[in-house]
Amino acid sequence: MVNITRPPAQKVERGQNPRTGRVTCTVAVTPPDGVEAALGAASAASRAVGASSPATRARWLRAIADALEEPDAAADLIALADRETALGETRLAAELARTADQLRFYGDAAVEGSYLGVTIDRATPARPSLARVRVPLGPVAVFGASNFPLAFGVLGNDTASALAAGCPVVVKGHPAHPALSARLADLALSALERAGAPDGAFALVTGFDSGAMLVQSPHTAAVAFTGSQQGGQHLWRLANERDVVIPVFAEMGTVNPVVLTPAGAAGTAEVAAGFVRAFTGGAGQFCTKPGLLFAPSGSGFAAAAGRALERSAPQAWCLTEQIAASAAAGTDGLVEDGATVVARVAGPGRGWSVEAVLLSAPIGAVRPGNRLLEECFGPVALVVEYQDMAGLLSVLPRLQGTLAAAIMSGGEQDPDIPRLLDALTPLVGRVVVDGWPTGVATAWGQQHGGPWPATTAPASTSVGAAALDRFTRPVTYQGTPDMALPPPLRPDNPWSVPRRVDGALEMGRR
Amino acid sequence: MVNITRPPAQKVERGQNPRTGRVTCTVAVTPPDGVEAALGAASAASRAVGASSPATRARWLRAIADALEEPDAAADLIALADRETALGETRLAAELARTADQLRFYGDAAVEGSYLGVTIDRATPARPSLARVRVPLGPVAVFGASNFPLAFGVLGNDTASALAAGCPVVVKGHPAHPALSARLADLALSALERAGAPDGAFALVTGFDSGAMLVQSPHTAAVAFTGSQQGGQHLWRLANERDVVIPVFAEMGTVNPVVLTPAGAAGTAEVAAGFVRAFTGGAGQFCTKPGLLFAPSGSGFAAAAGRALERSAPQAWCLTEQIAASAAAGTDGLVEDGATVVARVAGPGRGWSVEAVLLSAPIGAVRPGNRLLEECFGPVALVVEYQDMAGLLSVLPRLQGTLAAAIMSGGEQDPDIPRLLDALTPLVGRVVVDGWPTGVATAWGQQHGGPWPATTAPASTSVGAAALDRFTRPVTYQGTPDMALPPPLRPDNPWSVPRRVDGALEMGRR
Repeated sequence: MVNITRPPAQKVERGQNPRTGRVTCTVAVTPPDGVEAALGAASAASRAVGASSPATRARWLRAIADALEEPDAAADLIALADRETALGETRLAAELARTADQLRFYGDAAVEGSYLGVTIDRATPARPSLARVRVPLGPVAVFGASNFPLAFGVLGNDTASALAAGCPVVVKGHPAHPALSARLADLALSALERAGAPDGAFALVTGFDSGAMLVQSPHTAAVAFTGSQQGGQHLWRLANERDVVIPVFAEMGTVNPVVLTPAGAAGTAEVAAGFVRAFTGGAGQFCTKPGLLFAPSGSGFAAAAGRALERSAPQAWCLTEQIAASAAAGTDGLVEDGATVVARVAGPGRGWSVEAVLLSAPIGAVRPGNRLLEECFGPVALVVEYQDMAGLLSVLPRLQGTLAAAIMSGGEQDPDIPRLLDALTPLVGRVVVDGWPTGVATAWGQQHGGPWPATTAPASTSVGAAALDRFTRPVTYQGTPDMALPPPLRPDNPWSVPRRVDGALEMGRR
Repeated sequence: MVNITRPPAQKVERGQNPRTGRVTCTVAVTPPDGVEAALGAASAASRAVGASSPATRARWLRAIADALEEPDAAADLIALADRETALGETRLAAELARTADQLRFYGDAAVEGSYLGVTIDRATPARPSLARVRVPLGPVAVFGASNFPLAFGVLGNDTASALAAGCPVVVKGHPAHPALSARLADLALSALERAGAPDGAFALVTGFDSGAMLVQSPHTAAVAFTGSQQGGQHLWRLANERDVVIPVFAEMGTVNPVVLTPAGAAGTAEVAAGFVRAFTGGAGQFCTKPGLLFAPSGSGFAAAAGRALERSAPQAWCLTEQIAASAAAGTDGLVEDGATVVARVAGPGRGWSVEAVLLSAPIGAVRPGNRLLEECFGPVALVVEYQDMAGLLSVLPRLQGTLAAAIMSGGEQDPDIPRLLDALTPLVGRVVVDGWPTGVATAWGQQHGGPWPATTAPASTSVGAAALDRFTRPVTYQGTPDMALPPPLRPDNPWSVPRRVDGALEMGRR
């Protein structure tokens, strides 16, 4: 959870090792004039960044990706990230590779050019020509996540997709990993300079007050955030109080319900083991962690998952002291609202150690306003047993909007799959059949978003090719001479992008 | 301007003839249980409307269009509209034809199917399949405009595009034309019933309090509004106070600046006559009315436009008493903020008569916070003379976000076109070269929106094929068996829609 109470005025942020709580580094907080300077430079760079071709921006993004994967830099980043997050070097090495892949993916998506939405209606006797293209919004303020220090951090999805879309980026670094953030920013700045990107295309600022300045500045055109509902909604409210309101794309944590169907219950033991891995992996600090699983009564699922939890005995630390405290308090809240502890495994004890807890609750306890429906960030999950499908289907609409949901079925022919898809679709950005919601592939078909309160902008995604759309808006040029049009609207289509001409789609020439 | 102060509790709305002020009809205001019933029926119809094929919905929309154009109905609607709006039968007949065309256009856009954004990434060894499609949001509350009683009214762009996208619609009728609204709703309900649309797919409610109920109801999934900044922002704030916040697509009036270039000044007399027609047409009650024109100093433009205004001597009535009062007050406000009256032509005197006024102001008066930058709804416009292009270019960024802007040039080779397009693009949803911003064609390439405060959702358009996008959001189905997928994601593509498969665009089969 992000603490949105203004902390005491700070001059420094302290990196701490979650395994010990020891301070590992001290990073100066950006002073107000530093934030102003970053925003001014971003604003000054907007025209050059926005007018650059997608191929040019893809080159900048590849330069950053290559810099991250340079062996010495990669080893350094992984060690630094592990020291500040305790997520483990294996996971962090995979996350670094993913981060580099993402940077290249968004560059490729920009080059492909569909994100421009080029639509040309040539002049007719009844009306002049109309040529529509999506233009970049301008400087984007990115608030990186704590839980994916690389893939959703300083150079994560939001930064990569905003740059790909032609917008300068000013990142507010997450205080949970200040040294890593500074190192990532240094690498990016060098890579961008080498690749010829304009000064001001990218900057990092730190400090709580700097974040508010970013949202309130007239230079800022959009905000992207990954984190808690409390944090994301706070920024959204700040932005809504501006004279010129700007969009806030906040992707927030949710409960991500899973349904085990009656036919799927034959696989209870295996599903239970998978469930434990899914809710304890990364110390349960995934926005897509399955926090709530509905199992058929009599399946013995809760007991099986409890045994699996005790066997797996996860020993994990939270990213911050506050997350560890919130996870413990969240468990207490679930008990207060009617859940019973099925199994609990103590954490390693030192540092920001966290207990892994599995709870169960009767289905009647699942009702609006009950904390059982809300995310408890950390390795904590709840099993609810249902009597029959009709009863379950009457309960599902009470759930909050959520990033993802999953159905663990008895196979493709399971008759409950279609009706559960029907019931879950209105609640989610993504439904998974026979898989866990935790993995979010960077792909053309990805949707990482969901109805309020999963995001503040349910039609947007923070992962996948459509992530670029967030940072653009359409402009139509009416009756405009060809050579005065932006390149993708010109008759020779110099960027070779797909276009709709007089209503019919035409492929890009490649 | 919409009055957002709660009026005294009403039981009826009175239609009035603007030419005389006389009451022409009395329509009962929908009681709260009637609003609840309409919303409940819309919610109950959501599944059937959303699951219907685009071709089915296109049939419903064509049935409404045909009903509007049935000769007796059309004559009746035009007469009724003229009695309640005084916009004149010629204009209203054209608007009725446009409204029917729009209904068919949005149906055709739905059938074409690009709005579904179908994107399929087939399974790979590294990840399961991802299949993404835009799904309808559910019931949409539509607030029709006063100034286009047909094209942006009960069956206007918002209603047509929401139905086309698969969402039930509950319209809040505009109090300026209650009898027309009731007649349009009756026609639509009969046509929808004949075409086999589900009960609850469409309803009309009336009354100020009914509007607030629509925005606050948990049944409502989105709001579409056309009208004043005050009215649209009020609904947006109401929606933001909900537990589950919903999107508000408010398209609002703006100043729509026009620049006459030095080369274009050769045509001053002709441009001046066109300007007068553009700002006085429909009694200046267009959201795209050019309210501010920059002319080169020494061009004599203000004087020429003043003479054209006196010659044309428009004799017009406003739609409501309040708009007439606002137009007069707005003129006074412009004078208070530094403008001088160049010419004024008295209205016809009776009813909601309105004076047409042309003003001028020095360029230094154009600064943020000054009313010269704000819309004055009605036949009122301002001319500002600029010394040189550099000076003008330094002033343009002070303008508010606006729906449209125009450049009146000296022809395709005019060197000022590219630099003005550059300067105006960040401010607008649409730029027009050598035309007036008033006409908004319903087409694939249209963008009728713009930066805040032109709309509350600058990436959206309320006119054109992309208007459907507002009422959908993407959902991804991961690892889902083919036959459990919604039709547009199935391997056989039964709706024949364009799709992106493994990153590559594929045309629909037609």
